Amino acid sequence: MVKIDLTGCDAFIKPEVFDRYVNKALEAQAVLENQTGAGNDFLGWQHLPSETGQAEIDDCLSVVDSWLEREVDLVVVIGIGGSYLGAKAAIEALSHSFAAHLGSQGLKVVFAGENLSEDYTAELLDLVRLHNTACVVISKSGTTTEPAVAFRLLKRHLEETYGKEEACARIVAITDKARGALKSLSNQEGYKTFVIEDNVGGRFSVLTPVGLVPIALAGFDIEAMLKGAKDAEAALSQRSADNPAVRYAAMRNLLYDNGKKIELFASFNPKLQYLGEWFKQLFGESEGKDGKGIFPASVIFTTDLHSMGQYIQQGERILFETVVTVENAGREVTIPSDPQDLDGLNYLAGKHVEHCNRMAQLGTKMAHIDGGVPNLEIRIDRLDEYNLGQLFYFFEKVCGISAYQLGVNPFNQPGVEAYKKNMFKLLEKPGY
Amino acid sequence: MVKIDLTGCDAFIKPEVFDRYVNKALEAQAVLENQTGAGNDFLGWQHLPSETGQAEIDDCLSVVDSWLEREVDLVVVIGIGGSYLGAKAAIEALSHSFAAHLGSQGLKVVFAGENLSEDYTAELLDLVRLHNTACVVISKSGTTTEPAVAFRLLKRHLEETYGKEEACARIVAITDKARGALKSLSNQEGYKTFVIEDNVGGRFSVLTPVGLVPIALAGFDIEAMLKGAKDAEAALSQRSADNPAVRYAAMRNLLYDNGKKIELFASFNPKLQYLGEWFKQLFGESEGKDGKGIFPASVIFTTDLHSMGQYIQQGERILFETVVTVENAGREVTIPSDPQDLDGLNYLAGKHVEHCNRMAQLGTKMAHIDGGVPNLEIRIDRLDEYNLGQLFYFFEKVCGISAYQLGVNPFNQPGVEAYKKNMFKLLEKPGY
Repeated sequence: MVKIDLTGCDAFIKPEVFDRYVNKALEAQAVLENQTGAGNDFLGWQHLPSETGQAEIDDCLSVVDSWLEREVDLVVVIGIGGSYLGAKAAIEALSHSFAAHLGSQGLKVVFAGENLSEDYTAELLDLVRLHNTACVVISKSGTTTEPAVAFRLLKRHLEETYGKEEACARIVAITDKARGALKSLSNQEGYKTFVIEDNVGGRFSVLTPVGLVPIALAGFDIEAMLKGAKDAEAALSQRSADNPAVRYAAMRNLLYDNGKKIELFASFNPKLQYLGEWFKQLFGESEGKDGKGIFPASVIFTTDLHSMGQYIQQGERILFETVVTVENAGREVTIPSDPQDLDGLNYLAGKHVEHCNRMAQLGTKMAHIDGGVPNLEIRIDRLDEYNLGQLFYFFEKVCGISAYQLGVNPFNQPGVEAYKKNMFKLLEKPGY
Repeated sequence: MVKIDLTGCDAFIKPEVFDRYVNKALEAQAVLENQTGAGNDFLGWQHLPSETGQAEIDDCLSVVDSWLEREVDLVVVIGIGGSYLGAKAAIEALSHSFAAHLGSQGLKVVFAGENLSEDYTAELLDLVRLHNTACVVISKSGTTTEPAVAFRLLKRHLEETYGKEEACARIVAITDKARGALKSLSNQEGYKTFVIEDNVGGRFSVLTPVGLVPIALAGFDIEAMLKGAKDAEAALSQRSADNPAVRYAAMRNLLYDNGKKIELFASFNPKLQYLGEWFKQLFGESEGKDGKGIFPASVIFTTDLHSMGQYIQQGERILFETVVTVENAGREVTIPSDPQDLDGLNYLAGKHVEHCNRMAQLGTKMAHIDGGVPNLEIRIDRLDEYNLGQLFYFFEKVCGISAYQLGVNPFNQPGVEAYKKNMFKLLEKPGY
């Protein structure tokens, strides 16, 4: 089970104050679980892991089978925000570091519709022309500008390349169950569809088909991921001061109230770079409102110890860091001995590279605490589907509790509309 | 020439106060250019572009020729921090979005030695086994743990695969001119070497062989990049309140003094993601000391408008954003018309995707200003080597001025040693 270590905060807090924050977090947990808080029509994510059955899993896997049968070798997943970051985070975490270079064993998954860059769009079209391509389009409404533009172009490409009928078999839509442009089009064309339930917001949707279908297509075990999330769901529903989600939520609110305005998501595993991006959406969008909220940032160590490390050590003392530790590496490499030892590394000969990484992590923790940066640590056993499922659910649960404790609605995002309204006016969209 | 637009700050500042900050920035510029400030033995970067001659450029290009002749198809560039981020930023900015998937036209460049992940290391070895590989190793001392570990493994692989003599022809070292482990090894083995001058710090080294050799190997025009930097060097040395580097430095200090603790580097071009990482090292490491400094963060829009957008619009009002605009796309895609128009996009039919991107940018600027986030805009004509060279030099110059104006030494990084000392103790390194 996900473990949490808050000892790296001891130097910064008084135990009795922390206890008060834990009690408040327990109240927030009750609000969340009893569905009595603001935004309580978006709580469907809470019991998703335990309520997702074999039929739903098999339905996701049927897409994989169908496309492998068609000898598809490239899947373009179209989506933005919560319809992009969960799948991206999981696929990056689980893939070979050089998967794109190596050519994939199964289906290669790339993302589109998450920006409006003309260069990116043109280059995506270069790529699809060289592959046997299929497409997953993810949009509740079907009218969000970025994915809609990408989908128009992909749909045309697929229809021109494979003919109308075959193109329909190469498009899967994940969308509203009844309404919206994408649902209408899917009905008309006969696309295979999956439902985005009304009670699950985008940033909480990684364990729905929004995340599961792309992750399964990339070749990963969504059943194990759901099992991890299910175990987390059970463990994190305990109403206890020992609940790690409660403790983490309490600590981040306590630190925030004491001037720590920035939370640095950090990991010593480069495969978690996009889990950091997912984390930033989850917490930034849930808490950043009403002039409040911890600013989420992310780093990968030791890489960024050689860039952001200086600031973290000695800059403004307005930050704390949350480090996700992966306790066991998946592969083995030891450091070779060298008869000359010019680089002076022989003291590490025979040691695992990950041993050095772990000592770097421990050394960093001590250094940052000394420098005035509270350190929270979250530990998983290894980087696999099961543990990632736990981690996704853990952060979602923390986020719900923490935002209620902060006093904001965790489940709305009123500020996201502002740029769109201006953009539509500038683009002369009818009605704006 | 790089243009700067500060009108997005008008609502937040008084002109007469800004004028005072500009005057202070001009004083800081004089300190920088007259070499009278702290850290003035690290000012070699200032005149690099104008002092780099054809011989130096040809020397970088000779590596490309030699390795193409050997039919090398993969180059592993080993380095961390400033020996990694500049080349990474440039290569990402200039490459096809799906270069890794497409197989490259010339030499494929990947990076190593910038982390201590065992999985990453093992997977790098998977990759090199499948390729005709060469290696650039970048380290002033040759003993920095991360690159030293990676280089031990790569050196062994190259020697075992190609034999000792051929391996030597496939290794280029960029290192100190006289001292250090890597210099000694290079002398002994006969590696081709390039010099890291004593007066250029890592984060200011992208326009030295540290950046130029990898960028040239990836197939890009380093001569054009240096030409851009040289034009920027000339333009930005004017001692005038109109100097865009002076104005930008003045504005960021003014905003910081008024509680804007976070600078968000933003771009609407996803190829600039790693320029954001380079920016974060440059400014974070130069200014984040003595308990001071703006915290640098980065986002790519419109992608992150659907993640960090909510926070930026309505969270804590402690941020301002610096947006790098690329005025012209390199490729062309227009939005197709659709007879049914279920997605309602026909109002955009025939329009360039980049037109929508530009309107998104304009709409975002207005929305963020309305929301209380000052907006600074930096514009380049197009994303090519010449403009990127300008941009690199521009940010370096701003950084030197801005850090002096803040009152810190821009060129040291005393905090970076803290984690290393702890790590060496934990690893039982002799002497610790």
